[in-house]
Formats: sequence, C-alpha cells, structure tokens
Amino acid sequence: MKFCGQCGQPVRQEIPAGDNRPRDVCTACGYVHYVNPTMVLGCVPTWEGRILLCKRAIEPRLGYWTVPAGFMENGETIAQGAARETREEALAEVDIGDLLAIVDVIRARQVHLFFRAHMQSDRFGPGEESLEVELFDEADIPWDDIAFPSVTYALKRFLEDRDRGVSDVHVTAMGWP
Amino acid sequence: MKFCGQCGQPVRQEIPAGDNRPRDVCTACGYVHYVNPTMVLGCVPTWEGRILLCKRAIEPRLGYWTVPAGFMENGETIAQGAARETREEALAEVDIGDLLAIVDVIRARQVHLFFRAHMQSDRFGPGEESLEVELFDEADIPWDDIAFPSVTYALKRFLEDRDRGVSDVHVTAMGWP
Repeated sequence: MKFCGQCGQPVRQEIPAGDNRPRDVCTACGYVHYVNPTMVLGCVPTWEGRILLCKRAIEPRLGYWTVPAGFMENGETIAQGAARETREEALAEVDIGDLLAIVDVIRARQVHLFFRAHMQSDRFGPGEESLEVELFDEADIPWDDIAFPSVTYALKRFLEDRDRGVSDVHVTAMGWP
Repeated sequence: MKFCGQCGQPVRQEIPAGDNRPRDVCTACGYVHYVNPTMVLGCVPTWEGRILLCKRAIEPRLGYWTVPAGFMENGETIAQGAARETREEALAEVDIGDLLAIVDVIRARQVHLFFRAHMQSDRFGPGEESLEVELFDEADIPWDDIAFPSVTYALKRFLEDRDRGVSDVHVTAMGWP
C-alpha cells in the first residue's frame, strides 16, 4: 500500500504509539492501515464415498486439481463460506460437516480451513473458476496434480480418518518464509 | 475505503468482471480492494488448574475481563499468535495445546480461535493493554464481567470439557447483523 484509503495521501511505514511493529500510517491524517492474514475456506465433498475435485480454470495453479475452496467473505460463517465456494466452483450443494483441518500457510499470509461435507445430490459441474469437476474414488485421486500442499494435507487426513473411523481436527503449518 | 491504496485516486463500489459482489475498485487504475474477515487468536492459559484472565485497559470493553487474545499478524501461525498475545497482554509464557473453539463473530467480521494452553511458570502481570491479570479458580470467574460473548463461550466449553475429561473442538456462530 502506498496511499491512504481514507484521504488519498501517501503512507509511510512506522510503529504507531502503543504498537510494536511497523504499519502503513498516513502522513496526512494519521490513519493506521493494518494488514492481517486472510482465511481460505474449503471442504472435502463426498457422494457415495467418492470425493469431488475441481480442475482449476484460473491462476495460480491453472489446470491442477483442488477441493472447492476460496477466500472467506464478510457476512458469512466459515461453514457457509465453504458451502458457497462449493456452489460456485463445483455447482454442488453440500451439507457441511465437522472441521477437518486448519493449515497455516505462512508465506501466503493465509489460514486454510477445511470441513468434511456431504453432497445433497449427485448434481455437480464446472463453475466459472473450474475447467472440470469430477467424483474420484480414493484410488484415482490425482496426487501428482493437486494444486496446493494444504489440499493434499486435507485429503490425506480425510482418508486416514475415514479408514480409522474417526473425525479428528488436524492443525499444521507450512510455507515458512 | 475512499481512495486507492495503489495510486491515491478515488474508488467506487462495483462488481469486478468474474466476481459476484461489489468491491472497492479504483476509478483511475482499476485496482480491486478486497476486504475480508480478520482472525482473533486467544487461549485459555492455566496454572495448577486456575485460569489466567486479563482486565482490559483499552476499548472496546475497557475494565472487563478476557482471556489473552488479539488480531493475528502476518508471519505467524495461529498457535504462535495466541502465545504472542498472552506474552503481550499477560506477560506470561505458555505452551499452546489443542484447539478449543472457533467462533464466527459475523457483525464484527471476525473469526475468533481459542486454544487450550499451559503456563510455563506462575509468572504473569499486566501488559500494556491490561489493567490487571489474575489467576482464577473456576468458582471465582467473573461471569458477569467478561468482555466478549466469544470469551464466555470458550471458557464455558473449556470447563465443561475439563469436567468430562475430553478435549473437543467447538465451532459456533454469533453476532448476526
């Protein structure tokens, strides 16, 4: 950020009074602009044991496979956001289940949250941000073509837990600077 | 936001191509400014069964009690953030344990995450944002003077789980618009 969102004048990096790290502070009106990590919400949707994956139509990682996931919006819960992303990217309606994984993606300044989810029907298809959407048997998951390490992590924990008959919440960190 | 952080010219609300909701878009350079919910990280620190609470020295809710908690910063994990807030507000070092609760606070555009935590020693005291810091027995927790509903929720679930000898992850939503 170079200019103040409140008054349009230049900002500079300084440590505000009572704070302990540099922020973008307006040189004219003094407004402090905080920049915090963002949340990415996703789910592992299943239908009769198979897993719904989307082939990305957009960068980053165009052409690679992912579970439905995207940035949390204001005015929604984390579960609603995960369901909305599934609707938008896979044209599928899901019932969001319990929390599956939380992944700190440090370098990207993101926290990824994944839920387990059940599809309400076998209807699905590619939304605007997907090239293809498909249901995969566990044996057919394209592990070498998964878009993001956090998605691989969530899928692996999902499958392990399913094998063991448990529903744990898994927390990990990846992508250090 | 009224002005573009990239070029300082006015923004206006419009729906960018490929998007489905209004954003602040720069009238000069076209930059799209996304505003997403922020994360608040906290923990329930304990020492010999007692719970560490801070009396707030700042608004909102000055003079009310809370567990150590605050906004997540870039470059840290959710667990590191919860430990940092405890260091800053209660001058206490903690080992962060497992995840306790996630609370969607819709109106505030925040998601609050709370961990269980063990204090490394009985050393603590008021940081800059606290008037007092105290260890409370369960029977003495000032329920009528807790700063935020999400903190009450986390403390109640913590105590219930402790009674039952379990460590669940609790997810809820509050504060609808």
